[in-house]
Amino acid sequence: MPDILWPGDHHAGEILTDATILDAMVQVESAWSAALVTAGIAPADAVLSADALRGLIADGDLEGIAEEAESGGNPVIPLVRRLRDGLGSSAAGMWLHRGLTSQDVMDTALMLCVAEGFDAVRIELDAQVEVLRQLADGHRRTMMPARTLTQHAVPMTFGLKAAQWLRGVLEAREQVAGLAFPVQMGGAAGTSAAAAELSGRGADAAPVAVRAGAIAADILGLAPVAPWHSVRTAVTRSGDAAVGCSDAWGHIANDVLVLSRPEIGELSEGSGGSSSTMPHKANPVLSVLIRRAALSAPPLGATLHQAAADATDERTAGAWHVEWDALRTLVRRAVVAARQTSRLVAELHVHGDRMQANLADAGAAVTSEQESMSRIAGHTPTPEYLGATQHYIDAQLARARRVTTEGA
Amino acid sequence: MPDILWPGDHHAGEILTDATILDAMVQVESAWSAALVTAGIAPADAVLSADALRGLIADGDLEGIAEEAESGGNPVIPLVRRLRDGLGSSAAGMWLHRGLTSQDVMDTALMLCVAEGFDAVRIELDAQVEVLRQLADGHRRTMMPARTLTQHAVPMTFGLKAAQWLRGVLEAREQVAGLAFPVQMGGAAGTSAAAAELSGRGADAAPVAVRAGAIAADILGLAPVAPWHSVRTAVTRSGDAAVGCSDAWGHIANDVLVLSRPEIGELSEGSGGSSSTMPHKANPVLSVLIRRAALSAPPLGATLHQAAADATDERTAGAWHVEWDALRTLVRRAVVAARQTSRLVAELHVHGDRMQANLADAGAAVTSEQESMSRIAGHTPTPEYLGATQHYIDAQLARARRVTTEGA
Amino acid sequence: MPDILWPGDHHAGEILTDATILDAMVQVESAWSAALVTAGIAPADAVLSADALRGLIADGDLEGIAEEAESGGNPVIPLVRRLRDGLGSSAAGMWLHRGLTSQDVMDTALMLCVAEGFDAVRIELDAQVEVLRQLADGHRRTMMPARTLTQHAVPMTFGLKAAQWLRGVLEAREQVAGLAFPVQMGGAAGTSAAAAELSGRGADAAPVAVRAGAIAADILGLAPVAPWHSVRTAVTRSGDAAVGCSDAWGHIANDVLVLSRPEIGELSEGSGGSSSTMPHKANPVLSVLIRRAALSAPPLGATLHQAAADATDERTAGAWHVEWDALRTLVRRAVVAARQTSRLVAELHVHGDRMQANLADAGAAVTSEQESMSRIAGHTPTPEYLGATQHYIDAQLARARRVTTEGA
Amino acid sequence: MPDILWPGDHHAGEILTDATILDAMVQVESAWSAALVTAGIAPADAVLSADALRGLIADGDLEGIAEEAESGGNPVIPLVRRLRDGLGSSAAGMWLHRGLTSQDVMDTALMLCVAEGFDAVRIELDAQVEVLRQLADGHRRTMMPARTLTQHAVPMTFGLKAAQWLRGVLEAREQVAGLAFPVQMGGAAGTSAAAAELSGRGADAAPVAVRAGAIAADILGLAPVAPWHSVRTAVTRSGDAAVGCSDAWGHIANDVLVLSRPEIGELSEGSGGSSSTMPHKANPVLSVLIRRAALSAPPLGATLHQAAADATDERTAGAWHVEWDALRTLVRRAVVAARQTSRLVAELHVHGDRMQANLADAGAAVTSEQESMSRIAGHTPTPEYLGATQHYIDAQLARARRVTTEGA
Repeated sequence: MPDILWPGDHHAGEILTDATILDAMVQVESAWSAALVTAGIAPADAVLSADALRGLIADGDLEGIAEEAESGGNPVIPLVRRLRDGLGSSAAGMWLHRGLTSQDVMDTALMLCVAEGFDAVRIELDAQVEVLRQLADGHRRTMMPARTLTQHAVPMTFGLKAAQWLRGVLEAREQVAGLAFPVQMGGAAGTSAAAAELSGRGADAAPVAVRAGAIAADILGLAPVAPWHSVRTAVTRSGDAAVGCSDAWGHIANDVLVLSRPEIGELSEGSGGSSSTMPHKANPVLSVLIRRAALSAPPLGATLHQAAADATDERTAGAWHVEWDALRTLVRRAVVAARQTSRLVAELHVHGDRMQANLADAGAAVTSEQESMSRIAGHTPTPEYLGATQHYIDAQLARARRVTTEGA
Repeated sequence: MPDILWPGDHHAGEILTDATILDAMVQVESAWSAALVTAGIAPADAVLSADALRGLIADGDLEGIAEEAESGGNPVIPLVRRLRDGLGSSAAGMWLHRGLTSQDVMDTALMLCVAEGFDAVRIELDAQVEVLRQLADGHRRTMMPARTLTQHAVPMTFGLKAAQWLRGVLEAREQVAGLAFPVQMGGAAGTSAAAAELSGRGADAAPVAVRAGAIAADILGLAPVAPWHSVRTAVTRSGDAAVGCSDAWGHIANDVLVLSRPEIGELSEGSGGSSSTMPHKANPVLSVLIRRAALSAPPLGATLHQAAADATDERTAGAWHVEWDALRTLVRRAVVAARQTSRLVAELHVHGDRMQANLADAGAAVTSEQESMSRIAGHTPTPEYLGATQHYIDAQLARARRVTTEGA
Repeated sequence: MPDILWPGDHHAGEILTDATILDAMVQVESAWSAALVTAGIAPADAVLSADALRGLIADGDLEGIAEEAESGGNPVIPLVRRLRDGLGSSAAGMWLHRGLTSQDVMDTALMLCVAEGFDAVRIELDAQVEVLRQLADGHRRTMMPARTLTQHAVPMTFGLKAAQWLRGVLEAREQVAGLAFPVQMGGAAGTSAAAAELSGRGADAAPVAVRAGAIAADILGLAPVAPWHSVRTAVTRSGDAAVGCSDAWGHIANDVLVLSRPEIGELSEGSGGSSSTMPHKANPVLSVLIRRAALSAPPLGATLHQAAADATDERTAGAWHVEWDALRTLVRRAVVAARQTSRLVAELHVHGDRMQANLADAGAAVTSEQESMSRIAGHTPTPEYLGATQHYIDAQLARARRVTTEGA
Repeated sequence: MPDILWPGDHHAGEILTDATILDAMVQVESAWSAALVTAGIAPADAVLSADALRGLIADGDLEGIAEEAESGGNPVIPLVRRLRDGLGSSAAGMWLHRGLTSQDVMDTALMLCVAEGFDAVRIELDAQVEVLRQLADGHRRTMMPARTLTQHAVPMTFGLKAAQWLRGVLEAREQVAGLAFPVQMGGAAGTSAAAAELSGRGADAAPVAVRAGAIAADILGLAPVAPWHSVRTAVTRSGDAAVGCSDAWGHIANDVLVLSRPEIGELSEGSGGSSSTMPHKANPVLSVLIRRAALSAPPLGATLHQAAADATDERTAGAWHVEWDALRTLVRRAVVAARQTSRLVAELHVHGDRMQANLADAGAAVTSEQESMSRIAGHTPTPEYLGATQHYIDAQLARARRVTTEGA
């Protein structure tokens, strides 16, 4: 159900919804059972597919799990209880969740879901790179006034502006591409003591326990790393990347908002939004909603850092719990803003005539610098006064090309 | 449906859910129609009860409204469209939403819902005042070591600690009690021009339009004020109050977390939370979840200020939109934390014996200051070394009594 | 020395500088000594004026105190050491700081300095009220297009815009006027045990100790309250008020930034800032710097709440220490932005002709709503379509008048 | 002069002080003059060493520059004015700052200073890696109770805790090592038009202008990139890295704060801080101050993102200006916390006996899980129940070794 207070929320679909997170938790339990079997800790009949496990949970159970989450502080406890009830005294029931702690299931499930969210973001970033490349290249000679601190400065081209937008998107993409999503499989205090004990190998159990974690990671497609219950870099880096994306998109939206003001009129959204009372009005709604997301992201990112910096003991009281919804919100909003930005740039109307007219109207405001410079140099002014504009556009196009061809 | 990632969320029930906000928007439209009629702008048959209006929206419409909210940037537009479709060419249909802008409906509906949220918070604050008053009074002589910067300092009593918790709660209550929830009824740009025009009174229309707003405020139980589309103090003050509550509750939770560490053992939660793997463990789950809320609130409050400070034009692009979910989240979480704190303090176990034992074990760490002081004063040390402890407890009890008896 | 990275910082002068804080700490020690004497705890010769105490600290000592502050975690410890060294075995030396803890001195000194900062802010708010009142009244009929989500909406007048700015300033002023600045005099753990012990009155000492605190508060002009070492409302409310001011000023600055864009040209700053390379350029520098402050304030306010919510024990490890510089920065920046806003509004150029021309150019964008409304009402359109504009202007003028005449 | 409200500030020495920034701005001007000459734009006598330029500014000028910064909104304008006054009509005076805009000088100077700050941070991170490696290895068998949500969980060793601290530090180091500090040389609107015009090469000028930027970057030791006036990734990544460091250090400080509580007593700081009134008290002051920094950093990092996301036009009004002090504060505080953390870990006292005693006292709380597990596995319990603890310690030691030997 999309959030009525976050227009566009439906673009994030099932990413990180309560139901999706529940599914992911079930997948984690299933993968761990399989890992226990493969590592030789549990008997072969202890494994159960995620689907089979999921089948033990009725859709109506979601609400009960959410409510019961309060008594232990997280939803893993009531989920495991229900799964065990469903499995009874079978081997699968006996072995379910053995060796894991709630944080293992929660962290791993969130990493699975966050990875899915960033997959969606990356697809949009790539689409944006493609469109912005064309805008930058196609408008490399579309003259407009540059503006600094709201005032006319010197001439530039819209292609250069698009190239700067592209640069922001490329840098966000770079950050997203660098993310790693680790598995969390450490048991009560991150020592894997329970898994080791269950293996019955005594002093030789450690490699078996470690191997179980690696197998689970492999099944889930996550990075196999040592437990990180109290070292939250995986979370903060995901948050920083989502914020970095919002920064890049906010920049584009701000420029569209300014340049589509009626008195300026250099850009307009493909299909402006309607008004509830003024039929003639076409609001730059996508830009409005993207700017909204950009305003919202940094404090959520800060919350993740505040939580990471509060790490204490082998599981942090409160600071771990505050991460979940902050991370979910950041990532879902990133997906929404990603889609909106893709559409914004794809449908953007560029009014080259208005750009040219505004440049001409600016008069001395945009020509005075050149006059000083040519006087110092003792030459007549060069036509256009664009300096290395083409070079700077080309620099971003080249970066974009590397991304497109090498996927890097 | 409670949020699976915010254990305890069900305590906020229907407060500020999507469906509740939809209902509130319908109430606002209904109140405005009634105001138009009462003010003599619209004919008598233009009015329709909120229930009748609500009946035009199927439960399944909520999702559609949420999705369609994107095209105009807010959910009011698709809601009004549906209501008009339902009302057809009737007078009620003709007059629905006339004179309003989306922001009027959205802001007023949110104020209605936020007021309801703070009603719930206030009930809990009062309950906490009552319990903390008893704790402070009942334990006014229960000796324990004061701790500063984690180390033992001098003797104090648990009653004084409870009195300080009480003080925080009283100050939060004071802030909540001072909140005003204004109606927003200004039309496209906050001039009430449409309402005035609709009245057909020409130059004499202004008082009629103003009166319509006041009538709507009266129906809805909100404060009648001039339009505040770009002056967001009502929103930021609500946010600050929610954060202020979280500060007070976080303080209590932190102390419980420290003092229920097994090595300290001076406090314990009434019913500690279970662990998914360690049956003997009783986690201080309420404190954990309250601390979580306290960590989460300040950045959300900052988002509301960042939005207020971004106000531009007669409706701000993005900064208005970012408020909605931040405010909802803050208030719902305040309600949840309020309930959890009420239960935490009501069920708290105070282990006076451990307090006394820890004080005795502290030895010179808690007696050295007194020795210096009595040496300077040239007297033998006073028993207990509690100074004005009773006086400071009494000061908070007196404040609490004023609240209870005068409701102020 | 003004901060080179915060242009305009010199407007805050000596408010909350290191030297001013040092002076305030000395005042607190002097006031406390006087209180000990007046309350009958210390002998008459134990008192020393703040000037005499200050004379014991060479200007060059400031750096040493700052450096030595690290070993105990705050600057009070090295200050007291120096003062005692200077006073030797005199009664004043013997009694200096007896009964106080570092937090008493630090918190009280900061409250003194913060109060001074808000005095400066209030003077500017009053000046702004006066100017904005004139702008609102004088331009109550200066027509301009209202803008929502960056696009033209309906007609309004600049007087109404100024009235909305005024409203924000009045609400900020209201918040500042509501602040209380309490003394902090509680001793090691907020029990006043040391002061009581020093009095040598045994079981009857409490009132004497409390009275000493009240006397010190009276000398310093602060509110006498029970110790609040772990209940930080005085700090967070000061922070919230500073942020509230920034919100109001940011709103004004944003509108000036938009409306002074050359294509819009409805406003301009009295004396635009120069450019290092473009002589013709007149940047809206005051607005730029005010907006900067408005962007910076909310996260600093959040830091104060994060600290308050982290309160633990009878003195919080780290959360207390993080308040000092955040509060100082917030208040100094508020003073700077206050002065800049006063000047911005006092020198603002209002270009009524451009407003009128932009309104005319907007065409159907600003007339279509009225056409719909008059059609529904079955009347010919009223000239101007300003609705209750004058009424809403008058409402703010009336509030401003109450402030001016009643000082409330 | 160290900040009296940020104890330990002196550890950051001259890094990013006003005077250092002024020097850096002068270096940038000098490097650019040299670049103009080398690129063949300016005559050979246009160059002047940074020292010679710096000699034109009296120490007393700093205050004047700071004050005059207000009129244009940044300190570059008054600096350039003074330098030109000093250089008169010489070639160096004629060519000074030609082709640059204030933002070029400011951004480049800040990058120089921030790079210096991170150099200092990196040295400390390396020192911490070395110490933590030894702690992890040396205490790999020092048994202690793991704690989750404040309660005893299962056994662990202090070596594993130290390994987790090490991991945080390694991940922070990785982030710092990945930072790039770019030059900013773009002229009024990031087109290098002025530099190109000054070269007098007409249509062939672009490569010359680009080359000038690259030469300046080379002289200054910064990365040569296209102008980034409106794409602020270099700033936000620096901020994120500083916050990431604080997270890692905060984690260590929190654990020390908890474990040095007198009732727990497992760790203590090498030299605890004194109290102004209680001689026996040894506060964990370094941990207190490190935690303080960790609380302060995330909102400052959020400010940088909020500024980046606000990017508009070719120079952003206010959002650019708010970066400067936030970045400076973050980096200086990172240097201070780096030094304090190095000392904290180097001097940390580990009380293995108390760890062992607390583990023994914990009783069933730490043994119950093992009993369940060995029962399921049908084996007698393994001694110690440490699972893969040694493996996880080794994993971090191996990472640390790679860093030490490969510097990567």
